[in-house]
Amino acid sequence: MTEEHFKDLKVNQKRLMEDIHHTCKWGTGEQWGEAATETGMSRLALSDADKQARDWFVETTQALGCKTTVDEMGNIFAIRPGLKNDKPPTYVGSHLDTQPTGGRYDGILGVTAGVEMLKVLADNWVETEYPVGVVNWTNEEGARFPMSMVSSGVWAGSIPLEKAHNLREVHPGTATQKSELERIGYLGTTPASYEAMPMAAHFELHIEQGPLLEMANKKIGVVTGVQAYKWLTVKVKGRDTHTGTTDLKSRADALLTASKMILHSHKLATAHGALASTGILNLKPGSTNTVPGDVTFSLDIRAKKDSTVAELKALVERNFPKIAAGEDIDSLNHGCTAGLPLSVSITEDFDSPAATFHSDCIHAVQQSALSVLGPNSNSLVMEMTSGAGHDSVYASKRCPTSMIFVPCREGVSHNPREFCEEVDCATGAQVLLESVVRFDRMRDERRVTWKQEPYTL
Amino acid sequence: MTEEHFKDLKVNQKRLMEDIHHTCKWGTGEQWGEAATETGMSRLALSDADKQARDWFVETTQALGCKTTVDEMGNIFAIRPGLKNDKPPTYVGSHLDTQPTGGRYDGILGVTAGVEMLKVLADNWVETEYPVGVVNWTNEEGARFPMSMVSSGVWAGSIPLEKAHNLREVHPGTATQKSELERIGYLGTTPASYEAMPMAAHFELHIEQGPLLEMANKKIGVVTGVQAYKWLTVKVKGRDTHTGTTDLKSRADALLTASKMILHSHKLATAHGALASTGILNLKPGSTNTVPGDVTFSLDIRAKKDSTVAELKALVERNFPKIAAGEDIDSLNHGCTAGLPLSVSITEDFDSPAATFHSDCIHAVQQSALSVLGPNSNSLVMEMTSGAGHDSVYASKRCPTSMIFVPCREGVSHNPREFCEEVDCATGAQVLLESVVRFDRMRDERRVTWKQEPYTL
Repeated sequence: MTEEHFKDLKVNQKRLMEDIHHTCKWGTGEQWGEAATETGMSRLALSDADKQARDWFVETTQALGCKTTVDEMGNIFAIRPGLKNDKPPTYVGSHLDTQPTGGRYDGILGVTAGVEMLKVLADNWVETEYPVGVVNWTNEEGARFPMSMVSSGVWAGSIPLEKAHNLREVHPGTATQKSELERIGYLGTTPASYEAMPMAAHFELHIEQGPLLEMANKKIGVVTGVQAYKWLTVKVKGRDTHTGTTDLKSRADALLTASKMILHSHKLATAHGALASTGILNLKPGSTNTVPGDVTFSLDIRAKKDSTVAELKALVERNFPKIAAGEDIDSLNHGCTAGLPLSVSITEDFDSPAATFHSDCIHAVQQSALSVLGPNSNSLVMEMTSGAGHDSVYASKRCPTSMIFVPCREGVSHNPREFCEEVDCATGAQVLLESVVRFDRMRDERRVTWKQEPYTL
Repeated sequence: MTEEHFKDLKVNQKRLMEDIHHTCKWGTGEQWGEAATETGMSRLALSDADKQARDWFVETTQALGCKTTVDEMGNIFAIRPGLKNDKPPTYVGSHLDTQPTGGRYDGILGVTAGVEMLKVLADNWVETEYPVGVVNWTNEEGARFPMSMVSSGVWAGSIPLEKAHNLREVHPGTATQKSELERIGYLGTTPASYEAMPMAAHFELHIEQGPLLEMANKKIGVVTGVQAYKWLTVKVKGRDTHTGTTDLKSRADALLTASKMILHSHKLATAHGALASTGILNLKPGSTNTVPGDVTFSLDIRAKKDSTVAELKALVERNFPKIAAGEDIDSLNHGCTAGLPLSVSITEDFDSPAATFHSDCIHAVQQSALSVLGPNSNSLVMEMTSGAGHDSVYASKRCPTSMIFVPCREGVSHNPREFCEEVDCATGAQVLLESVVRFDRMRDERRVTWKQEPYTL
């Protein structure tokens, strides 16, 4: 197939949107607008609604001539044969589960765009050189069973199967991931492993979940990697005292101290070109006239490089105890009354190292984006690092990988109001389709550089 | 009675402690030490436990020769006749209700010390010139029915009876203050009013609930007034965004902004010799990887003068919107990344103006403290302003008033570990007893200055 032939393979925008909205009738969430499609999603992993969406995925891909395989983690691999079926497929992958107050595009766009790709290939009687697949990864969100990207993690050999199987649903449930896989009929027998289900490549289309594309008026983000991050829990221990009877210098105010730490972490992030965010903060005892003696907060640190994240963590571990002890870090104490010393403990809950995507996949996406957006479309495409984790992080450990980002309104995601314009969904799906076909051709022409790399192709 | 006769009137420390611990078997809270008396208290106003403590108060004071009157708010007035019973009594007052996680001394010490006073007077066959009374005020804490000092407030004419009667218990209850008064048999028929139940004076013994006495090695605080305070609620509105995909300059981080406000309020308080405290902070949505878009926090501002509290409130109302808009107040933004503007709204929930106690009562307490603590005891006594509100605030609106503070361990109160040494309880009770007898004598000798003041005597 030559460059010109790509032009004949056209994603059907209307059909793609119909698939998105059709599947979103399972697990519909909060209504935010007037139109029937203006709702969020609440399709927790391995729920009845997730089963219905999975059943649709299996039936639809089988009807398009795919063979489907379910592995021990419930990951569903739909494979469309090519001319040379002794080699692994080139995959498109994403997830059908959502956050409890999620939207219609996070994950869902990636899977439905994969299905649309299969439809376009079928409509046009295209025979690819190698097989092409679409994978629906189980429980990417980690919302119900609290470990995100867990099933691509098992596939990649990074997370033990037993640990994933035994993961218990969040309070107050008692089900495990394995018991729920069994209950909805998606506990497969194929090993959840890159060896049992090898991939020649993994392409993922996703909404950006951030504001950069929209703010820069770009249409396609070519994702070159995923930033590193660590999640810390910080516990500040002071002393509960009466707000009216305790002068400022006799206080060990855990919230005032936590406020300084939050501000300091932001300044550290600014200085290092990184991100630091606190999304959870709990205090005790929680009364207007009691100075809180206990504050616990989350600290999410992200940067492009593992070394930057490690450096920030080290600075936090060095400086937070100083702030607790009353030292003046960043001149934050200027104008404050020195109080009593407090203590602080910091634990690391989660570590996600940086992922660097594969140059061939990045190249395929880049070329496809320029092809889809037309001549002189350089200004509509930007290379970027993903701020969020995705199944592509684990996929990239075992096969060449890249991602395609499309803009979402105001960068909002994990929210019922998450929204991606229809034309942007379709553009992203078109770039995805062309990336897969382009990669298939690169494989055939042996022009790909990854043949020297230790992937099973 | 002359100065020398005071020396014969001796508080019985053992008996006082027995009364404290005896009444604390109703509504016992969390155990914190090994001894049977090392527990907190959880005796919510108008609960069954409160009824038992009230029954004890009525029976005990009646057995000591008092006439008891219950008013429409359930305030119990126990009056011991004097020689001239056509004039109002000199009162001792405090409260038997506690916080849900309170201690054994807050309020309880004041009432039991009043009962001990009655016992000492009875033991010694003392006839006072004027009647002497002990009052147990209903629901000082405002923990179950959320308005503190509510029944002394009705007595003083500052809070309407109907509003107090209709006060509903905090979630998830449905009872009102009136329905519970009725249920436990303490809905009296005497109007809750300073006109129906006039007082010649109100003396209150209380633990300090702060660290100043302990830190300064003082034994008695002579309380000259109560500081003013306002309670504000601050709502910061930003935008929920993904922590990984939203760069710092595209954020409207409500928690980072709230942290700056909390730090700024502390600096304002420091600059004005006042107090500013945040005891409650709630945020939404509350997820490690979401920048919070909504933060609500309490701000408790206190100072000796009403004008200082008003000035601090005005500064908060002027500067918090500037902080939300991104202006650099206090150089807090130095080293920060400027984000998107946020909005803030501030409401005032509660206002308690400063109270100034009466010079005659203060004088009576001062003289009694020096008498009790012995020659050269000036160094053991300090004049102080109460940081917390007390029923004496409302009492002082309608009669000469003062308070006596005794040290409590580490200044801890509203906590099961609240603790006051036995000897300090007894010293405080002795000063209370002498203050009342001294004031009675001052009334008799017409040496009191308040006869010219608009109190009904």
